[in-house]
Amino acid sequence: MIKEKLLSKKQLERYPVYLSYLKSLQDKGVINVSAPILAEGLSFSEEQVRKDLAAISSHSGKPKFGRNLKELVCDLEAFLGYNECAKAILVGVGHLGEAFLKFSGFNDFGLEIICGFDVDDNKIGNTIKGKPIYSIEQIAKIVKEHDIKIAIITTPNNVAQSVCDLLAGAGIKGIWNFATVHLNAPKGIVIENVNLASSLAVLSHKL
Amino acid sequence: MIKEKLLSKKQLERYPVYLSYLKSLQDKGVINVSAPILAEGLSFSEEQVRKDLAAISSHSGKPKFGRNLKELVCDLEAFLGYNECAKAILVGVGHLGEAFLKFSGFNDFGLEIICGFDVDDNKIGNTIKGKPIYSIEQIAKIVKEHDIKIAIITTPNNVAQSVCDLLAGAGIKGIWNFATVHLNAPKGIVIENVNLASSLAVLSHKL
Repeated sequence: MIKEKLLSKKQLERYPVYLSYLKSLQDKGVINVSAPILAEGLSFSEEQVRKDLAAISSHSGKPKFGRNLKELVCDLEAFLGYNECAKAILVGVGHLGEAFLKFSGFNDFGLEIICGFDVDDNKIGNTIKGKPIYSIEQIAKIVKEHDIKIAIITTPNNVAQSVCDLLAGAGIKGIWNFATVHLNAPKGIVIENVNLASSLAVLSHKL
Repeated sequence: MIKEKLLSKKQLERYPVYLSYLKSLQDKGVINVSAPILAEGLSFSEEQVRKDLAAISSHSGKPKFGRNLKELVCDLEAFLGYNECAKAILVGVGHLGEAFLKFSGFNDFGLEIICGFDVDDNKIGNTIKGKPIYSIEQIAKIVKEHDIKIAIITTPNNVAQSVCDLLAGAGIKGIWNFATVHLNAPKGIVIENVNLASSLAVLSHKL
């Protein structure tokens, strides 16, 4: 029985890191892997590795052999929801938004961006990698039609809050926010921030 | 006296959030701001706001008036190093790398990307927004010539570690890593990860 509610944010963030490392081992022909090997490769403690993997995998390792790599990869992909893509929309087709629309790698992480929205008439009506760009006035309609739960905000900071309000009104449940501002959303809407300014502040401070 | 060593990662991450919020207040013509106003606007506790601001600003607020917004913005920008740009290089000119080279906003956060590096002959020799793309064999030379301390990794996962080794050998001190893999670097080199797969895992799990 997996007790998902007990997983911390830090722990959740580690699972994709395990997965990419395990896949790199698979590419090298490795069949089994032990907690000490994972701990060393990823600079985690052995205790942490054992705890993290036990929380999401019902396959336990065998003494001397370790865990079966293939089973562990399957368990991680299932836990992370990578086997079925959730559909998402993107608002703000600037440099970053355009890059995200072009990038096919999100599908590997269980996310499929189906279209973009912008206010620029030169962009509306175009497609990027086959994904249409609509006017932001169309958000509510498209969200309803495709039963979308997730939206990505890549707008300039000064309009991010009004876009957030619009998305909340359209029935979006989760927002992946790349604007470098704090967003206020109604209760029940999850916001996950990727604040590049904050990340850079940490790097600069440590240097 | 500012005790910088006591600042936590979470705290450092909040300063750019304060700054963008304070600037949005400035745009609205606000002159003074109190801790309770900031706390409410940013969903932080009042105690946290007071502690965070005291750590980086020598200007204290006046009872009834609050803090002077202009002084606070100046203190934050000085603390975050936004008044002088650090030069950086970028390795991996794919969709994300290209977007970063095009994006002028990093300059506002104290970072100037001066050039990109790639292995693709079709990209090498070109410029993006005036920034040249060089062969990765040129990394050590350019880093030395321009006394570069910071590098951004936007390569595919399977080459990120070898690029990290190359950067470490070239004398880079801080790496901003956008590959979704764990990197091992020699002691003394700071790595700040922006792992989009990890961020997405948190969002998906909460939904």
